[in-house]
Amino acid sequence: MITINENFLKLQAGYLFPEIGRRVSAFAKDNPDADIIKLGIGDVTEPLAPAIIEAMHKAVDEQANAGTFKGYGPEQGYGFLVDAIIENDFRRRGVELDPAEVFISDGSKCDTGNIQEIFGLDNTIAVTDPVYPVYVDTNVMAGRSGGAGEDGRYEGIVYLPCTAENNFSPDLPDQMVDIIYLCYPNNPTGTVADKATLKKWVNYARANKAIILFDAAYEAFISDDTIPHSIYEVEGAKEVAIEFRSFSKVIGFTGVRCAFTVVPKALKAWTTDGKEIAVNGLWNRRHSTKFNGASCISQAGAAAYYTPEGKEQVKKIIDLYMGNAKVIRESLSSFGYDIYGGTNAPYIWLHTKDGMSSWEFFDLLLTKANVVGTPGSGFGASGEGYFRLSAFNDPSKVAEAMDRISKL
Amino acid sequence: MITINENFLKLQAGYLFPEIGRRVSAFAKDNPDADIIKLGIGDVTEPLAPAIIEAMHKAVDEQANAGTFKGYGPEQGYGFLVDAIIENDFRRRGVELDPAEVFISDGSKCDTGNIQEIFGLDNTIAVTDPVYPVYVDTNVMAGRSGGAGEDGRYEGIVYLPCTAENNFSPDLPDQMVDIIYLCYPNNPTGTVADKATLKKWVNYARANKAIILFDAAYEAFISDDTIPHSIYEVEGAKEVAIEFRSFSKVIGFTGVRCAFTVVPKALKAWTTDGKEIAVNGLWNRRHSTKFNGASCISQAGAAAYYTPEGKEQVKKIIDLYMGNAKVIRESLSSFGYDIYGGTNAPYIWLHTKDGMSSWEFFDLLLTKANVVGTPGSGFGASGEGYFRLSAFNDPSKVAEAMDRISKL
Repeated sequence: MITINENFLKLQAGYLFPEIGRRVSAFAKDNPDADIIKLGIGDVTEPLAPAIIEAMHKAVDEQANAGTFKGYGPEQGYGFLVDAIIENDFRRRGVELDPAEVFISDGSKCDTGNIQEIFGLDNTIAVTDPVYPVYVDTNVMAGRSGGAGEDGRYEGIVYLPCTAENNFSPDLPDQMVDIIYLCYPNNPTGTVADKATLKKWVNYARANKAIILFDAAYEAFISDDTIPHSIYEVEGAKEVAIEFRSFSKVIGFTGVRCAFTVVPKALKAWTTDGKEIAVNGLWNRRHSTKFNGASCISQAGAAAYYTPEGKEQVKKIIDLYMGNAKVIRESLSSFGYDIYGGTNAPYIWLHTKDGMSSWEFFDLLLTKANVVGTPGSGFGASGEGYFRLSAFNDPSKVAEAMDRISKL
Repeated sequence: MITINENFLKLQAGYLFPEIGRRVSAFAKDNPDADIIKLGIGDVTEPLAPAIIEAMHKAVDEQANAGTFKGYGPEQGYGFLVDAIIENDFRRRGVELDPAEVFISDGSKCDTGNIQEIFGLDNTIAVTDPVYPVYVDTNVMAGRSGGAGEDGRYEGIVYLPCTAENNFSPDLPDQMVDIIYLCYPNNPTGTVADKATLKKWVNYARANKAIILFDAAYEAFISDDTIPHSIYEVEGAKEVAIEFRSFSKVIGFTGVRCAFTVVPKALKAWTTDGKEIAVNGLWNRRHSTKFNGASCISQAGAAAYYTPEGKEQVKKIIDLYMGNAKVIRESLSSFGYDIYGGTNAPYIWLHTKDGMSSWEFFDLLLTKANVVGTPGSGFGASGEGYFRLSAFNDPSKVAEAMDRISKL
């Protein structure tokens, strides 16, 4: 008899964003004239940079000619993209990487979800709370947790609360953990980690033979020069950290799909009887067995970001979004909300007033201002009473949204 | 201490195609003037159909304008593609599907590799032998096997030998199995299953509460009208089968990436204590948690295949490849080889002569004729003494390859 993976039954009802979509659809159906402004799911809105469009047209044309046609590419990605990444994203910040340490993929959601497969089921997972739900859900599916409690937290997973009280920078866990998910600039709180903070985590991992899974999907939004873009800017991090990067938010590739993951050769893990194993080889085996490379067209587009024109054009788009972030921060502050993030990240994290719950605030904003945001409690128990607004929209829409919120 | 997934240590050294690549590279390095003809990995060579190229240019242009820009799409794929698939690939063959039963992805390697995640680790897996290595390797990684024996077979996995003796159509297993991987038209043997054969498997699955994972990546190469293109052409199959389809070989998307998987709502599996669970919901949860949709450009290109121009242009390319298959079949037969497949599939499966091993034949072909094929033993113990040639190449190269082989 065919049996299911019963860990799936532990999962809480519905992934956060489908539930938001359901409420928005229901409201739109009942209010067909409402002009809904979406500052919710964190999807980009600006069209792609011209240099990237041009590169993708060229890549499409290459598929029209036998001499330039690309069939299966390397599962790990094309050298032209890997080399551009190493040169621009790492070498210029003082980090040296070997091409075999970079794995191109079709998205960070996939990579951060799949990475846990190469580790044992006996590892204890630590996540910040609030957190991007994929880190947790994929470990629950794999069997690294018990059931969920009333607060939505899964038994066996270690949650590190991030609230205004600790400035959204979690303390080290007070019990031994083996895998730590960190995301900086942070989704959803929009806060960043300075070098000393990252050093604290690297030291913990080195001392405890733990691994840090570092999600840097939003590094391009950092404006403060003292904030590291990569965890490898911290000495010794290559021995304890995997880093995830995405082109989704940086160059607007949420629909086109491209990302990459760095697995340093110096990173080791162990068998239960203490034999040391290189993690790079494990991930390479997983990646080449279950994945067949990102689209050659997406890879060509991503590589165009690293040209002088591409960088300049993309910077303008990022500046536009960060201008939105400034407007949102300043407006909400003036309305009397406590707000966080939004200076080195495209997310603004606000504290609701008068003890209003995250979903109550969601419904208020949707029904009274026709503005969609993301309830903080959807990211974890410690997100209750908080709310995420994203800077991804047209400046005129953002201004309109702030105007409507001002009237609440 | 961070521990690894020790199941990875059970995997045999190297996936088949990297080993082929290694031997070809070494030969090419020592013989820089050799004109190597590749009939190996099964990668397409013809440029894409003009209608598909045009659709992808249009999709790229849409990304250049705010009004048509596509960000995150539905994880399950765009309705325009799902609807075209249902209408053309299924309804026209008498199979009705609901849009929620079709999941667009970036490749069948991913889908056939990931599908096992939603099932329990206690299920017994059956595969044909020879077989596409991904089915086996992904189950080994997940822990559904013991170690490998000297013949490369993993303990706990049920192998169903397919040889000339049984006309490459395996008998039903003589022990209870829960998950059966079937691939028709078959990779690597190029053979097909008629309706009676599929009916035998569907009946087995229904009688034993088993699930069939049906890989139909090569259905477009079927020329015999009596051969089913979908397992759902067999009555009752929706209750016991998942079907995988790929655009890779059909429309030349090995580099562009697009595929889909059908999980019927009628398909059920069970908890260990006998509770019935709909498999569609499990896969939807897995797919939407760990995947963020195939590239919008790839999906636009795939949809263009279903236009009248697209179909006509793609048919010409398939006819070209199948013309190659005919040349290979007839040539090798005339050289005295026993050959199989190649009439409803782009693969020709030949029996080596004089008891030569698959890898010996590989090295002979590479070094003496500078032709690359795929050793049958790379697909499993029962593939020993067989060899796969693919029809994916330019007709002039295929003719040249046959001429060189004739002189061996």
